[in-house]
Amino acid sequence: MSADSTTGPAGNDRDGSLHGARFAARASGFHPSPVRAVFEVSMLPGMISLAGGNPDLSALPMAEIADAARTLLVEEGLDALQYGSGAGTETLRQAISEVMAIEGAHTSPANVQVTAGSQMALELVTTMFCDPGDVVLAEGPTYVGALSVFEGLQAEVAHVAMDDDGLDPVLLQERIDEVKSAGKTIKFLYTIPNFNNPAGVSLAVHRRQAVVDICRAENIAIVEDNPYGMISFDGSYMPTLYSLDPDNVFYLGSFSKIFSPGVRIGWVVAPEQVRGRLQIAAEATTICPSMLSQMLVVRYVRNFDWRDYVEKSSATYAARCAATMAALEEHMPSGTTWTVPTGGFFTWITLPEGCSVTELLQPSIENGVVFVPGIAFYADGEGTNQLRVAFSFEDESMLEEGIKRLGATIATLAAGQAG
Amino acid sequence: MSADSTTGPAGNDRDGSLHGARFAARASGFHPSPVRAVFEVSMLPGMISLAGGNPDLSALPMAEIADAARTLLVEEGLDALQYGSGAGTETLRQAISEVMAIEGAHTSPANVQVTAGSQMALELVTTMFCDPGDVVLAEGPTYVGALSVFEGLQAEVAHVAMDDDGLDPVLLQERIDEVKSAGKTIKFLYTIPNFNNPAGVSLAVHRRQAVVDICRAENIAIVEDNPYGMISFDGSYMPTLYSLDPDNVFYLGSFSKIFSPGVRIGWVVAPEQVRGRLQIAAEATTICPSMLSQMLVVRYVRNFDWRDYVEKSSATYAARCAATMAALEEHMPSGTTWTVPTGGFFTWITLPEGCSVTELLQPSIENGVVFVPGIAFYADGEGTNQLRVAFSFEDESMLEEGIKRLGATIATLAAGQAG
Repeated sequence: MSADSTTGPAGNDRDGSLHGARFAARASGFHPSPVRAVFEVSMLPGMISLAGGNPDLSALPMAEIADAARTLLVEEGLDALQYGSGAGTETLRQAISEVMAIEGAHTSPANVQVTAGSQMALELVTTMFCDPGDVVLAEGPTYVGALSVFEGLQAEVAHVAMDDDGLDPVLLQERIDEVKSAGKTIKFLYTIPNFNNPAGVSLAVHRRQAVVDICRAENIAIVEDNPYGMISFDGSYMPTLYSLDPDNVFYLGSFSKIFSPGVRIGWVVAPEQVRGRLQIAAEATTICPSMLSQMLVVRYVRNFDWRDYVEKSSATYAARCAATMAALEEHMPSGTTWTVPTGGFFTWITLPEGCSVTELLQPSIENGVVFVPGIAFYADGEGTNQLRVAFSFEDESMLEEGIKRLGATIATLAAGQAG
Repeated sequence: MSADSTTGPAGNDRDGSLHGARFAARASGFHPSPVRAVFEVSMLPGMISLAGGNPDLSALPMAEIADAARTLLVEEGLDALQYGSGAGTETLRQAISEVMAIEGAHTSPANVQVTAGSQMALELVTTMFCDPGDVVLAEGPTYVGALSVFEGLQAEVAHVAMDDDGLDPVLLQERIDEVKSAGKTIKFLYTIPNFNNPAGVSLAVHRRQAVVDICRAENIAIVEDNPYGMISFDGSYMPTLYSLDPDNVFYLGSFSKIFSPGVRIGWVVAPEQVRGRLQIAAEATTICPSMLSQMLVVRYVRNFDWRDYVEKSSATYAARCAATMAALEEHMPSGTTWTVPTGGFFTWITLPEGCSVTELLQPSIENGVVFVPGIAFYADGEGTNQLRVAFSFEDESMLEEGIKRLGATIATLAAGQAG
């Protein structure tokens, strides 16, 4: 609430009542959620946050990046501070195609649309394909920010369950049949095949062709979101779905985990004619991506040993994941289970039978640890006994203490349930 | 078209036909337009472009800004490269409220939502209020990028004609009555009261209260877009509509003309409860505004004599406008008229009776000068004998030569019409 909430010249509308009756139907998708409160709680002193998925930036060569930013502005300031192409710069689109090739995804710069983060790329693709009431398939659980996009654009979400090998092709086919017999139109499968957020599992290589084939046969596009693919603890990369069917897969990429989320640079790869339309939609949103950010990213990719940074930070995340796994083993009461990530930022915890994550949240916060409740990652009310733990940002000792606090809180809750 | 357009693994869809049938109804709003071709033509060697509205950045203290960027990353790099609040940083929101106060618009940082340019702010507000088929009132002509937003969100546009004093309140009331009797719902008036893009005129001070009162009485919100307010040739600022009715006016602001479009930082001021919803919608689009850009803007506002830059560049624009006016007097055939701006980037030209701007465009390009045809600035097919001239980016001698070429082309066309 603003400081002048009751003192504006007209003085009668700082609560929004004047505008409430004017809202569009789609505005109802933009409502405060319990998840948002969690992120605010994360900031409280003494709180250990297992909630946010912030990357650890401490291994970035900051002094060198600072010099690069200075040199960029000295050498190319009039371009870096000006409007640019709505598609993104040619040099960045070229650099992106080279970054993608490292994971075996080969594309042309002409197919790359740069966006203010891959979140925006997902919104553009959803805008382009989904009429209100159209169905998007998504893993259950899936990325909370994707659910915001789908809800805001009035698309319905049908979840497909995962196991330790990710999305199950058999369940995928079943869900497609089910949605189709309900007379609904499926526009695409949204999937995070590598180190899923929030589930922490990956789509097994032997399942990838099957997923691609099913979507082709059913005339459903695939939107492959791959922000974590290079955050691989053993340094190996899995084949992208894009590489298996480039004409039917929209590939979303991001510099947030391999460089910086603060520059807000992501992208989508699309067949050229669709990319042209995505550019027009992107221009309606931001005119063009930030030239400053784009040109800094180009210098980062061209002038730095950025793969060394990715290697170093992946090692950091691997160590934090290992500490988290060890702490879970030590501190979780029996009946609690979790996934064992081989990359990425997250593990997914299932509470003992009968435990409600909603009931767990407040006592956990009182015990000085916060997480995101599982319900945030489902559009259908599932996840009531699950939660996401992020191990990307806190260090090992904080992670251990956080898991210890969480384990004790779960144990108390479980004992109450049992008693 | 991509270099590998026929050689992808599936090899059958680089023309987008696979996806064509999947497009949402709203995707039809994102189609290539003749205006886009104009901007590409602008890049041709030897072409004088009166098309683009790029600011002139040559008076920016570039070396100092480069140093500021370096210092920012050295001192606060871990924040500048990280995710941040979806609302924008507290310090930037505070700085924005101070920038607005210079034009007499007083708000609280709590009412400010930072966006990746004010284009995005307009899209958020339109998303929030307009269901498909809802009506937006807008000046005729209006900003082409606003029309993209309205078309993409399937809002209908009803234009209100301007004269040299801007929007006419009598015509505004008439248009409102007309739209209402057609049974349609008007959600807001979109207006650029200061140095209108593309018309080059301003809403006279004596009309401002009337416009605000009519919208209040008719329960229509106002979206006031004010990127050019400080680009005033005599240094005086007009009262914002926001200052006249802060509860009913959504104010869009931008750093693109007073600092840099390349950082993509704009904002919207809204009553706090609406602002909260705008934040949720903004997060669905970009998660958060670029921290790097936001923090650089704060340093620009805090550490530089930025008002001196605005003064210097306004003087540059004033000189270019004067040169344009003199050239128009000298080179335009009789029957051609134009507006006389007192600020901003544009003048609006009306061709002699019977001349079609569509017929003018190609011969003009052949004569080495390009502009944006008037039809781009209307949703209803008007503007067929009008065009926009931007004097912001080319220097005086280029402007004079460009106008000379344009005048000769118009004279030839008019002679053909007469003959």
